[in-house]
Amino acid sequence: MPTPLRAGIVTIGSELTSGTRFDTNSPWLAKRLAPLGIEAWVHRSVPDDLEAIARAFDETVAQAQVVISTGGLGPTSDDLTRDALARLLGVDLVFDAPSWEAIEARFAAFGRTPSESNRRQAEFPRGARVLATDVGTAAGFVVERRGVPIYAVPGVPREMRWMWERYLEPDLRALGGAARAVRAFRCVGIAESALGERLREVEATAGVEVRYAVEEAAGTIEVRLLTPPDVDAEALAARAHALVGAHHVCATGEDSLAEGVGRLLLGRGLTVATAESCTGGRIAAALTAIPGISGAFLEGLVTYSNEAKTRLLGVPAEVIADRGAVSAEVARAMAQGARERAGADWAVATTGVAGPGGGSAEKPVGLVHLAVAGRDGAIHHVERRYPGDRDQVQARASAGALDLLRRAVLGVVGERDPDWAGTRRA
Amino acid sequence: MPTPLRAGIVTIGSELTSGTRFDTNSPWLAKRLAPLGIEAWVHRSVPDDLEAIARAFDETVAQAQVVISTGGLGPTSDDLTRDALARLLGVDLVFDAPSWEAIEARFAAFGRTPSESNRRQAEFPRGARVLATDVGTAAGFVVERRGVPIYAVPGVPREMRWMWERYLEPDLRALGGAARAVRAFRCVGIAESALGERLREVEATAGVEVRYAVEEAAGTIEVRLLTPPDVDAEALAARAHALVGAHHVCATGEDSLAEGVGRLLLGRGLTVATAESCTGGRIAAALTAIPGISGAFLEGLVTYSNEAKTRLLGVPAEVIADRGAVSAEVARAMAQGARERAGADWAVATTGVAGPGGGSAEKPVGLVHLAVAGRDGAIHHVERRYPGDRDQVQARASAGALDLLRRAVLGVVGERDPDWAGTRRA
Repeated sequence: MPTPLRAGIVTIGSELTSGTRFDTNSPWLAKRLAPLGIEAWVHRSVPDDLEAIARAFDETVAQAQVVISTGGLGPTSDDLTRDALARLLGVDLVFDAPSWEAIEARFAAFGRTPSESNRRQAEFPRGARVLATDVGTAAGFVVERRGVPIYAVPGVPREMRWMWERYLEPDLRALGGAARAVRAFRCVGIAESALGERLREVEATAGVEVRYAVEEAAGTIEVRLLTPPDVDAEALAARAHALVGAHHVCATGEDSLAEGVGRLLLGRGLTVATAESCTGGRIAAALTAIPGISGAFLEGLVTYSNEAKTRLLGVPAEVIADRGAVSAEVARAMAQGARERAGADWAVATTGVAGPGGGSAEKPVGLVHLAVAGRDGAIHHVERRYPGDRDQVQARASAGALDLLRRAVLGVVGERDPDWAGTRRA
Repeated sequence: MPTPLRAGIVTIGSELTSGTRFDTNSPWLAKRLAPLGIEAWVHRSVPDDLEAIARAFDETVAQAQVVISTGGLGPTSDDLTRDALARLLGVDLVFDAPSWEAIEARFAAFGRTPSESNRRQAEFPRGARVLATDVGTAAGFVVERRGVPIYAVPGVPREMRWMWERYLEPDLRALGGAARAVRAFRCVGIAESALGERLREVEATAGVEVRYAVEEAAGTIEVRLLTPPDVDAEALAARAHALVGAHHVCATGEDSLAEGVGRLLLGRGLTVATAESCTGGRIAAALTAIPGISGAFLEGLVTYSNEAKTRLLGVPAEVIADRGAVSAEVARAMAQGARERAGADWAVATTGVAGPGGGSAEKPVGLVHLAVAGRDGAIHHVERRYPGDRDQVQARASAGALDLLRRAVLGVVGERDPDWAGTRRA
């Protein structure tokens, strides 16, 4: 298969390596390179250190057909990208008059004059192509090392993105990478190990690459099929879905489990209400993160106190007294009450022990009752014991509830696999 | 002060290099290395490729006194960290019976049996020290290359963090870097530039390092004070709080804004209810993520439909008709209705246009009304226009509402600084 062109990304700044700021530029660039048939192959983050920066460029040039760096183009003494590349190339820095005039003009627009230190921003390695900027004082530039173009652009996301649209995207499109088709889908209720075994045939298809990403918090696993031009991506994806088991495929494309459920409801013109205790609003928040979900989501009730379960959902106080708030009976009554009061087609409910406190021998931390009520009067209930800390239990219970709703709507709520509910990975 | 030891971090996984997942492990580790007197010097992210992984380790060993890698320890064919390090060291992989037994036991606990592919998770480079795990099926391990210890731990954040506490933190503390005390706190409603100016005196203290991390989504700025042994960290932190303005300090330690608000309510024995429209349950979810919050959080209502706003919160239908669902009047009525019906001391409400659709010239995307009602009958309201996409608007509105609640409880809701509400960076 034609391997895509490989890009190396170098992000520069001690605020990145020290962990005080997330490197959002690398993922942003990587996602935009893929459709151009260019794969973001390696990332390096280095501090504001001349030696470390030069070394990162040298190493990356050996691994990629194009290198993109962000950061280190400011006016201060710790902005060293220009110096590092000049040193790596064995050239000096030369003053670029047009860049300096642009800086002066920008300051003048704010009624100010640039300081001497800004002159550094008008100096570039000899032979560099300057990438003029309209959105700041930091111009970018392009140099070449062993036939590999190196793009140096500002680290401020807004300025970096402007540079991408103005210069990098057109340039890199012209590089003409061998684009691969990508077919992504998300799975739920199946362990990564089982997923890998079921997709062995797909993995064995010539030129096809299968990537897995376990999404702990979402309780899902993302599968990405990268296919060369000579493979029918659609057919391969359909085959993969069949091998995994269609009822495990909860969303396609970039959709999350919640988005998959949201599209399912919107597509069928169905409405939903949520009644949450131990998940505390996570299910409602996941659904309402979807644009246009108001067409399906009516209301969500976070009934944390017993009194609220009775007043807002009509859960009989005696049932709570007899069975306890964490019980199948209460979960079922919550779902039924939420559906009827909202006049929704479906309602989903959760009640459980998220921990760390509140557990008992009979009802340990991680015990969660999930229930889904439908217009036909049927109420589906499952009891789960989720491992992990409070956050994990809440995340898994939310995913479990959304999946139960999805399966109830699809009418496959009964189906289970031996590997059901596992999505662990390392 | 003595130069700290240098660590290199290698994060492994094509989901990272392709931009489908953020690398949250590198910054998390970098932050925790600092107090041990170890500086995270360089980060590399590499795809699930044997050659690329081995190369990254080889390069990093040459730059650091300790190497930490996360990821690539799963059971599938693209989990290659074990193989890459064995290859780099020129040794074979050997089966570790105790690790396999632990995997079998873990599966058994969930009434399942491991698949053949899980056996890979019990294989380690010959001579490796195995780091057994209690929280998953992926054990970590330590090998040495040219006298540099290389720690390989799982990529799942929860498992990585467990490994850090159990093995890395004690080991690395023993490496004896020049340890520094860390005092962290979070600020809200103040711009990073203003924060820097107010803390100039603290920054000027000999040997003290001040690090800022703007948390865009949370609407907060984290400040970390790193102090040498000869500086009283407590006194310095107190001084910093005073300089910033106590009402801007919303949480201390690792607490988030929501956790700070939760502790404030629990500490004063106050109860709260939430009424959310555009934030869709995010505020309730943020509060209920706090262990023991049932002592303060009574209930949360996600009233997405107008009918729900009237039925569940008693918002007069005519007010919605006259002013529209996104209005100061509706936000105030939502807060008042939620507080009264829940019998809570406080209630917080949000209504706005999260987008991308639903905006108008009069009520554009990003317009949000926040309201807080108290037992004394007072209702505080603010109107905000948040930039960004749907997720950012929902995140910022949630943070804004939590902060309004916090200030109402503290009785400083009126106080404003010239830089108020600015946490965006220049």
